[in-house]
Amino acid sequence: MSLRKGNNVVLGENINLGNDVYIGHNCVVEDDVTIGDNVYIDSNTIIRSGTTIGSNSFVQSNCIIGEYQMDFCLNRKKHEHTLSIGDNAIIRSATIIYTGSTIGNDFQTGHRVTIREKSIIGNHVSLGTLTDVQGHCTIGDYVRTHSNCHIAQEAVIDNYVWLFPYVVLTNDLNPPSDDIAGVHIHSFAIIAADSLILPGREIGQDALVGAGSVVMKDVKPYMLVSGNPAKAIADVRKFNKVIGKEVYPWRNFFGRAMPWAEKGWDNWIASLSKEERRLFKVDEII
Amino acid sequence: MSLRKGNNVVLGENINLGNDVYIGHNCVVEDDVTIGDNVYIDSNTIIRSGTTIGSNSFVQSNCIIGEYQMDFCLNRKKHEHTLSIGDNAIIRSATIIYTGSTIGNDFQTGHRVTIREKSIIGNHVSLGTLTDVQGHCTIGDYVRTHSNCHIAQEAVIDNYVWLFPYVVLTNDLNPPSDDIAGVHIHSFAIIAADSLILPGREIGQDALVGAGSVVMKDVKPYMLVSGNPAKAIADVRKFNKVIGKEVYPWRNFFGRAMPWAEKGWDNWIASLSKEERRLFKVDEII
Amino acid sequence: MSLRKGNNVVLGENINLGNDVYIGHNCVVEDDVTIGDNVYIDSNTIIRSGTTIGSNSFVQSNCIIGEYQMDFCLNRKKHEHTLSIGDNAIIRSATIIYTGSTIGNDFQTGHRVTIREKSIIGNHVSLGTLTDVQGHCTIGDYVRTHSNCHIAQEAVIDNYVWLFPYVVLTNDLNPPSDDIAGVHIHSFAIIAADSLILPGREIGQDALVGAGSVVMKDVKPYMLVSGNPAKAIADVRKFNKVIGKEVYPWRNFFGRAMPWAEKGWDNWIASLSKEERRLFKVDEII
Repeated sequence: MSLRKGNNVVLGENINLGNDVYIGHNCVVEDDVTIGDNVYIDSNTIIRSGTTIGSNSFVQSNCIIGEYQMDFCLNRKKHEHTLSIGDNAIIRSATIIYTGSTIGNDFQTGHRVTIREKSIIGNHVSLGTLTDVQGHCTIGDYVRTHSNCHIAQEAVIDNYVWLFPYVVLTNDLNPPSDDIAGVHIHSFAIIAADSLILPGREIGQDALVGAGSVVMKDVKPYMLVSGNPAKAIADVRKFNKVIGKEVYPWRNFFGRAMPWAEKGWDNWIASLSKEERRLFKVDEII
Repeated sequence: MSLRKGNNVVLGENINLGNDVYIGHNCVVEDDVTIGDNVYIDSNTIIRSGTTIGSNSFVQSNCIIGEYQMDFCLNRKKHEHTLSIGDNAIIRSATIIYTGSTIGNDFQTGHRVTIREKSIIGNHVSLGTLTDVQGHCTIGDYVRTHSNCHIAQEAVIDNYVWLFPYVVLTNDLNPPSDDIAGVHIHSFAIIAADSLILPGREIGQDALVGAGSVVMKDVKPYMLVSGNPAKAIADVRKFNKVIGKEVYPWRNFFGRAMPWAEKGWDNWIASLSKEERRLFKVDEII
Repeated sequence: MSLRKGNNVVLGENINLGNDVYIGHNCVVEDDVTIGDNVYIDSNTIIRSGTTIGSNSFVQSNCIIGEYQMDFCLNRKKHEHTLSIGDNAIIRSATIIYTGSTIGNDFQTGHRVTIREKSIIGNHVSLGTLTDVQGHCTIGDYVRTHSNCHIAQEAVIDNYVWLFPYVVLTNDLNPPSDDIAGVHIHSFAIIAADSLILPGREIGQDALVGAGSVVMKDVKPYMLVSGNPAKAIADVRKFNKVIGKEVYPWRNFFGRAMPWAEKGWDNWIASLSKEERRLFKVDEII
């Protein structure tokens, strides 16, 4: 174990540190924290009780990792909640992540991301600056949100999904009410910038919601919808002719940050073993 | 008086502390601050000159309470502005509240809320994560905003109003201009997610603005409007048939965080004395 | 040189300070930083390596100025990037500005502004609270954004442009793709609140995009557009009759924060020398 520390670091009890950990100036690391090997925690960041951060991770300044839940605000007593973040995380400055969530490997955030309790987040997920994950939701693998997306409670986002800036997922069927129905976004779907998805709506696999849409009805797989209210425009595979370029379904033509980035989709999918197909959750593709 | 302190706390002069106050690591409490009994101020928070925080309040980390106004940026001299926050506040991390405002009891914020000067905020108000109150505005009792709402200057929000995520209130009639006209939202109105209200518009009592609307005209009491531009759809009392459920006006069927939460609206309103009716501002209901 | 310091300030090596500099409690100033005369840096702010801040500037609390880029997250080694901010800046609390950008004189931000690398920003620019500049973009002189605007990469914003709250500029022609085309907003254009501009679109000089618009096509100079999708409504010069007031082009009737604030547009433009016309970039007006 080797710990390098900045000035004025506060360390609690029962802290388990891996090798080559750096903890910057003015950091507070509370009791009952586990930090893997080769982790860098920058100045002014708070790591709270119950947090585990995987190896090779980088937590920038001014973050609060393991933020306590409402119970602590009310009773101010030691709680039992935990937060687990996998290996290779890059958590950018001023991000707040609550206890009570589980986050996989290769996680990234932009700045000022908020993630509340009971968020189950897979591997290789990237959440853009100002994105607000309200908790009580499930986010799959290789999901990417751009800036300022709002993930309401009870949302289910499958794998390989892209949300562009200012996408809002809602959940209250009759606001204000307790009639809560989360949005379900199926794998490979794309929600373009500034779109709003109404409560309980399903966005089908490989569907494309055009920028500025207000989605009031379910969107079928491979369907492009657009407008307020959003209307079906075309199957995305036919829409390529309108664009004049082979673009959709995007997985066939684009792979940035995806496991098929180097091989391309066709070669990659052909190369997978049965086990790998399960691992990468591509067996259900229609 | 009993004060517990973390490491490296900076305390100014003329600080009045109640009993059982905790001030966390690296906090800065400037001169001329009053803090009530049983208040918890978490690490890295700054409480600036002129601030009063009521008893039983909880201020999370990385907040700036009593942020100075433009005059201090220009002259860097001691100012006379004050901020008053009532009892039982829960102010979540990274919130910034300016001097020059008054906030009632039982106030809550989410994370990264901004409240500028000359905001008059009543009791039992809750402002969601990233909500941006631009100041020079009036917010009544039991008002609740969800995440990322924008309250422009000169807005008037009466009592028992709900704003859902990403609602934007505007105020400039001829942008850019000095022709400023605030939005007025009457009691019991609901603005659903991602809606935009144009300058000077009135949203009537018990009205419902559907998600994703752009409201260009006044909305009558009890009216449901929707779309871009928003059009009148139906009286909300008739809209219940479309929904197939008794939902609106919501106060008759829902009470979370409201004073009638336990009794229900009808029993509660029937139980009020004349004095209580004034106190709860329900005399004007049409 | 005279430096006043708060408690617990960390100063690196090779720091060049002007006269009358104040560095507040818990600030971290890393190596290789230059700060001009009469600069105030408030508590808990981090100034990172490679940053230059001009004279008479004010940096509020909880900022990160000179935030490192991705390379440092990956290799954790000293980098060569720089950030230059001109004189007279007012940078409000919790703002994050990356290295790799250049910002002119008289710069202002609201709270929690994010500016990423390769942002070229002119003089007299003001960016509102929560505005998110994604980098790789060019912003001219006297540009003002209100709260929560999103400036995508490759955007070009000319001079004297106003963006109102929640304006989103996009850049991905076929999301998700590498077909990137920035928005170009010409001088004196106005984008009203909650409007969305699709990738590669041009907004002409003195054009006006109405609130809540989704702009899918180029907008001609002096044209008012509105709606989703935005449609041409009228030449702004004729639209004055609809308003019943002389309002547009706004530069003829309004001057707040502009160089013609005192004289008015006509007198100001008439008074400019040839050299001043170049300096103020008004020669290209059509």
